[in-house]
Amino acid sequence: MRNPLQALLDHLDADHDHAVKRMCDLLSIPSVSTDPAYASDVRKAASWMAADFEEMRLETHVLEAGGHPVVIARSTDAMVENPGAPRVLFYGHYDVQPPDPLELWTDPPFEPKLHDGKVYARGACDDKGQVMMFVEAMRSYLATGRKLPCHVTLLIEGEEECGSVTLPKVLKEHANLLAADLCVVSDTSMWEGKDGPAPAITYALRGLVYYDLKLHGPSRDLHSGVYGGTLANPATVLARVLGKLFDDDNRVTIPGFYDDLAALTDEERATWDTLGFDEDQYLGSVGAQPYGEAGFSTLERRWARPSCDVNGLYGGYMGEGAKTVIPSFAGAKVSFRIPANMDPKKLAAAFETWVKSQDVGDCRWELENHGEAYPVATPTDSPWVDAASSAIQDVTGKPPVLVREGATIPVVADFKTKLGLDTLLIGFGLNSDSIHSPNEHFELDRFLLGCKCHAALLASLGSK
Amino acid sequence: MRNPLQALLDHLDADHDHAVKRMCDLLSIPSVSTDPAYASDVRKAASWMAADFEEMRLETHVLEAGGHPVVIARSTDAMVENPGAPRVLFYGHYDVQPPDPLELWTDPPFEPKLHDGKVYARGACDDKGQVMMFVEAMRSYLATGRKLPCHVTLLIEGEEECGSVTLPKVLKEHANLLAADLCVVSDTSMWEGKDGPAPAITYALRGLVYYDLKLHGPSRDLHSGVYGGTLANPATVLARVLGKLFDDDNRVTIPGFYDDLAALTDEERATWDTLGFDEDQYLGSVGAQPYGEAGFSTLERRWARPSCDVNGLYGGYMGEGAKTVIPSFAGAKVSFRIPANMDPKKLAAAFETWVKSQDVGDCRWELENHGEAYPVATPTDSPWVDAASSAIQDVTGKPPVLVREGATIPVVADFKTKLGLDTLLIGFGLNSDSIHSPNEHFELDRFLLGCKCHAALLASLGSK
Repeated sequence: MRNPLQALLDHLDADHDHAVKRMCDLLSIPSVSTDPAYASDVRKAASWMAADFEEMRLETHVLEAGGHPVVIARSTDAMVENPGAPRVLFYGHYDVQPPDPLELWTDPPFEPKLHDGKVYARGACDDKGQVMMFVEAMRSYLATGRKLPCHVTLLIEGEEECGSVTLPKVLKEHANLLAADLCVVSDTSMWEGKDGPAPAITYALRGLVYYDLKLHGPSRDLHSGVYGGTLANPATVLARVLGKLFDDDNRVTIPGFYDDLAALTDEERATWDTLGFDEDQYLGSVGAQPYGEAGFSTLERRWARPSCDVNGLYGGYMGEGAKTVIPSFAGAKVSFRIPANMDPKKLAAAFETWVKSQDVGDCRWELENHGEAYPVATPTDSPWVDAASSAIQDVTGKPPVLVREGATIPVVADFKTKLGLDTLLIGFGLNSDSIHSPNEHFELDRFLLGCKCHAALLASLGSK
Repeated sequence: MRNPLQALLDHLDADHDHAVKRMCDLLSIPSVSTDPAYASDVRKAASWMAADFEEMRLETHVLEAGGHPVVIARSTDAMVENPGAPRVLFYGHYDVQPPDPLELWTDPPFEPKLHDGKVYARGACDDKGQVMMFVEAMRSYLATGRKLPCHVTLLIEGEEECGSVTLPKVLKEHANLLAADLCVVSDTSMWEGKDGPAPAITYALRGLVYYDLKLHGPSRDLHSGVYGGTLANPATVLARVLGKLFDDDNRVTIPGFYDDLAALTDEERATWDTLGFDEDQYLGSVGAQPYGEAGFSTLERRWARPSCDVNGLYGGYMGEGAKTVIPSFAGAKVSFRIPANMDPKKLAAAFETWVKSQDVGDCRWELENHGEAYPVATPTDSPWVDAASSAIQDVTGKPPVLVREGATIPVVADFKTKLGLDTLLIGFGLNSDSIHSPNEHFELDRFLLGCKCHAALLASLGSK
């Protein structure tokens, strides 16, 4: 471990209680973005962040772009060691999920409590606690009289939990403020393999295509005795169409579906074999057995293969008991998760073409596209991945694991498509932190680990 | 037309206003069986019927069998011309559908109004008005000093609109009271072909098998990004299974499904060709085109072929917009309509076997049987059909049309399976009578026609 870093880590140890106090101040603001009743609290959280950034002498902007404010704070040139240093964009969010059901919380969700070495509050892990890890890492440089090893821009939004509606506009209109060489996000989890939690760099995410397929049939609900067998029942026909989406190997039958998919390399396969992936825990804990595309392991299916899921079915009689109705419509929510290099726009077009080519009698489709997101994949041999690995090894004594994620973080795709940035996702959550649930919490030791890793990351990136 | 019948018809003409008055008295009682708030009114309607039957000196029973009362009234031997005369069981119901939405009625639903030659009230056609046609036919014999040509048992229940829950018990426990040679029901409609409404005898009904298929997957709803592609999604798998229920000819794929189905005879096919079935009206009025089992006409599909319908789909996210969930369960309501001689119990067993034989990964089925009803088919060459045809021809000058019905009337199957009786369904409703809807009505001329046809029917059956 290099000595300059050690001084920062020592400072973070010494200042830990103050850092926890600052985090708790932020956690006490009920910045629930989805509920208009909390609108002034959301604004208060934005102001709190801005004030903290201003106190650090960052160039701070509270942008009003139609929704909740977006806070952008940039290091000034005077704060940075080397004008030619890399430019890091750190993204996070200061808004939180609603706390309900309130009665299941042991303590009030916006009165942070410390016990058992954890802080309990809504937002402790997702994402206020993780945002503050990066902020404390920056602060450790400035508080110890050092310059920053990188140019840093903080982009902290207030609508992540309600769809990041305003953010794309900000990315477009303020691209100059956000110019950077890479993006860092702390809104994910550590890798939890058979050997316990380990720091991880997530280098790839699957993208998404989501459709509502509504099939309209007769002009009104009909009696299935009077009409059964004589006309196209949209619920029956819809099920038949959905059934044809898959072959017997659980492969999607849409022509060209797999054409652009990046092949899994032997190197990645070999690396994944060393991760200690606990399939029994992953599937067994939700009462399931492995099932999916023939020829691939569970981890490969999760990270490197596309999936297609029916997320919802509706139509006709959905209550208890029996009603002999031929419904006038039926619908399905259908979504795809697509790894690199599949193109959501191309898939959406192919899917619509496929759907419309099916025999549905005289029924009529109403197709609604509810979202597309590109997959992202930062090359594992990129210098940024290398620098981040070194940084984490500097703090923990061993390199982080390199993992993918099956889920989608649309904003990360936006950073790639709109700002041209690769993103390193370095998160310190655990699946057991109860994010989006009652009694959300975050271990103080993990908070400190995150502060230290980000301090090391800035140093390591700065040396590139 | 034979002279003895003419005297009865003349009497029915002369007494018409009084008959309408009696019908309106009954219609003014709000005997809504499904709503406990009307329980005392339902009982009042039963008492009204019983009082009317007692006035006619019928042997009258108001049976308490746990639900709303069942009224049974029998002609005494002294009332009947010939001790060896056929025994007719007439079935109907004195309960009605709820009147809501009340605001769509022009006049209050239980204050019968006469205008435009129709009576407007809940129950006018379904089924109080049609029950009273048969009662008035009997009364015409007694009022004109005649004996009845048949032994008659009236079976009038008060739970038809809420599932006839009590009736099977009554059929079993009072089979001796109900002993008969055939059953007559007036709770259906006239045939409405291209040439307008015509009196009809419905000689066959399809039976029913109804299932709720619930497929359970993971122990809780999952994030489709985190889990998509790695486990069996019950909504996806359910759709795939439902899709396999049909082949490309829209034939049901359950092994043996069609084995017991009675073939459509050339004679029936030829008869149906003469009915003037208005396919454009039947399908076009509900915005549909013909679609179904290959090789059959719409009328054949409706009456003589089995059907399989998905009556409902549910599971996962059913609201507006998108939610990326893998649901822990999904379900479908699936029902079959089965013509003679398909056996609902055999089909239910075959369906369950088929469902359980499908590949659903580690998902688990929860199959709930929501009902089985046998199909019924009275042979068209039966002497009862012949007698009923003659009777209607005696009144109208031309024979009725012989039709089937695609729907199921479970009680009619019960008459066959529990009492061994074939049933003639001779109804005088029209599709435009708004049964189960606001402003239900019944034309007074059709009421009178029904009274006359039933009077003639008793004479004609008595001569067998």
